[in-house]
Amino acid sequence: MPFQFTITATSGPARLGRLDTPHGPLETPVFAPVGTQATVKAMRPRDLRELGATLVLANTYHLYLRPGDELIRDLGGLHRFMAWDGPILTDSGGFQVFSLSDTRRIDDDGVTFKSHLDGSSHRFTPERSIAIQENLGADIIMMFDECPPPNEYDYVKQSLGRTHAWAERCVAAKTRPDQALFGIVQGGVFRDLREQSAAFLLGLDLPGYAIGGLAVGESKAEMHAVLEWLHPVLPANKPRYLMGVGAPEDLVNGVLRGIDIFDCVLPTRIARNGAALVLGGRINLRNAQYTADPSPIDPTCACPTCAHFSRAYLRHLVMANEILAHILLTTHNLHFLLSLMDDFRKAIRKGTLADFASEFLSHYPPAELGEHSE
Amino acid sequence: MPFQFTITATSGPARLGRLDTPHGPLETPVFAPVGTQATVKAMRPRDLRELGATLVLANTYHLYLRPGDELIRDLGGLHRFMAWDGPILTDSGGFQVFSLSDTRRIDDDGVTFKSHLDGSSHRFTPERSIAIQENLGADIIMMFDECPPPNEYDYVKQSLGRTHAWAERCVAAKTRPDQALFGIVQGGVFRDLREQSAAFLLGLDLPGYAIGGLAVGESKAEMHAVLEWLHPVLPANKPRYLMGVGAPEDLVNGVLRGIDIFDCVLPTRIARNGAALVLGGRINLRNAQYTADPSPIDPTCACPTCAHFSRAYLRHLVMANEILAHILLTTHNLHFLLSLMDDFRKAIRKGTLADFASEFLSHYPPAELGEHSE
Repeated sequence: MPFQFTITATSGPARLGRLDTPHGPLETPVFAPVGTQATVKAMRPRDLRELGATLVLANTYHLYLRPGDELIRDLGGLHRFMAWDGPILTDSGGFQVFSLSDTRRIDDDGVTFKSHLDGSSHRFTPERSIAIQENLGADIIMMFDECPPPNEYDYVKQSLGRTHAWAERCVAAKTRPDQALFGIVQGGVFRDLREQSAAFLLGLDLPGYAIGGLAVGESKAEMHAVLEWLHPVLPANKPRYLMGVGAPEDLVNGVLRGIDIFDCVLPTRIARNGAALVLGGRINLRNAQYTADPSPIDPTCACPTCAHFSRAYLRHLVMANEILAHILLTTHNLHFLLSLMDDFRKAIRKGTLADFASEFLSHYPPAELGEHSE
Repeated sequence: MPFQFTITATSGPARLGRLDTPHGPLETPVFAPVGTQATVKAMRPRDLRELGATLVLANTYHLYLRPGDELIRDLGGLHRFMAWDGPILTDSGGFQVFSLSDTRRIDDDGVTFKSHLDGSSHRFTPERSIAIQENLGADIIMMFDECPPPNEYDYVKQSLGRTHAWAERCVAAKTRPDQALFGIVQGGVFRDLREQSAAFLLGLDLPGYAIGGLAVGESKAEMHAVLEWLHPVLPANKPRYLMGVGAPEDLVNGVLRGIDIFDCVLPTRIARNGAALVLGGRINLRNAQYTADPSPIDPTCACPTCAHFSRAYLRHLVMANEILAHILLTTHNLHFLLSLMDDFRKAIRKGTLADFASEFLSHYPPAELGEHSE
């Protein structure tokens, strides 16, 4: 049965699971590297596999604009196009329409926006988003939603009605049986709105539920509260996806609160800025203190970058703006998060998650003081 | 014995050989990818090994300026710094001083120049170039020479005296027994000057001889003539290195005229411009004709790029300015040249080089009409 979600162990709200997809099973909790333009920047598919990536996210907004979803369909779909034969998740384009495009006009039917590439005018509706995502052919597709500012109660409440109507239209528009359409719970930082949104979407009996509208400016404590409110409300037997979250401490806190799927540009984006994830934070290799440092980013790290290259060499590559800097730092950062997810899965299986999480989080500032996910 | 050069087969002037170095033997004829800043752009060392690269070139001028040769020495030398445990060749910095730096003043003692990075003033002399190259620690190092315009007889003739005096000073300055110092035959496109230069350098009894000052504006016919003049003059039992040449047809013509070592930025540089080498020329993936082309760059190519990715996908990556475009096209182009070198070696061994070269060159325009190597 496609998209069967099997929970094999739990530890409090945390779950160890397996989600079957047309492109193979996903072990959860899972972190999905982001391949915005049908490539995880600086990584070949084989590099991702070697790092243990199983799920890759691609962006509907970007691929619709360039090279075009119909072209990708005609070339056999996104899996073949980008030569990734594992599971793929596409977002709906909603978040990018609201965050990237210049002029936009939203109405109850959809959104008109201008391309960030050339200023040309385009329109997304729920039906159009689903049609594009069907052309792309990802295993998991997302409903088209509005992403309101999380702290404005009246706006969030009003937006919720629109998002729910769009959810129904997405369900009605969907035709492909080999794709799972996930709902997106909105509602900002407000418990009543989050619960109302969850209740509505549960009525649509979707194969998975995402939590949207977080990591967009609210505090860590607010993010955690939303997850805790939703934990008893969301169905235990469906995968839960926390969108756009990927700071290491957020992953721990998400898993502890029952999240199964994460995605974030953080590890790949900060790599291209010269930053490497280490336990407790990150180091920026532009810093002059690494000029003659012969040690790897992390002597205890098992990634291919730390096996061969010094901080001094990496700093040289960063300062010289060499492509290899992006390759090696992306490799390290993805390894950091993907092996962390592996540690979570092992800890849930062994029943040691609480201890593992507590030890891990002890290296990070308390939530209220923490740096926010990008 | 270090730097022993053993010729195992010949085919006319062409030679199959093995050059022993402190970092292992080199099969010749060999093409060296260029790692200007201690990285072959977009390639990890393991990628280079997988493609069959055995010798990598690095640039003295660039590494002296950034991160500094003393830093690299203190970190264990260039091999450890860039994690390449095979043979490395460094140029002397001469060519870059004459081609890249802004203000320069040449006198009989050396060259004063301004850094292309920050305009700071620096001075290279033969002794300084050798000291820097000893700090870097490559297996093969080059004498510091002047690179005059190849067609100006009087200037080339005058420059030759200086270059020869510098050659003697390089020999005198050299201290490391684990590095082979190659001489560089100059003399522009003039037979008497080339022969005069070769005769002088032969008197220094160097372990290898490079042919410099070509691929800088002269015609293909002139390049071939220089190689043919030098073939009977250069000692048969020493490796011969044609500097800065790497267009496929130039490699064939060089091997046919007795060249053992080549280097060139061409395969890596054109890759970053969206161009892929194919038999008979190159295709530029920016071209709209590849927008929906499902075939690989070359259906008969055995490289990892052609095994998985369509021209349409590569064009998308190029148009979207994705790092993966550089990775995949560099991979293909290096594979093209490195497997061509492998074909040369096999053909010399089997005694079929003439037929192989004739067939290969039939796909390219005649020499006089050919595009010049970059």
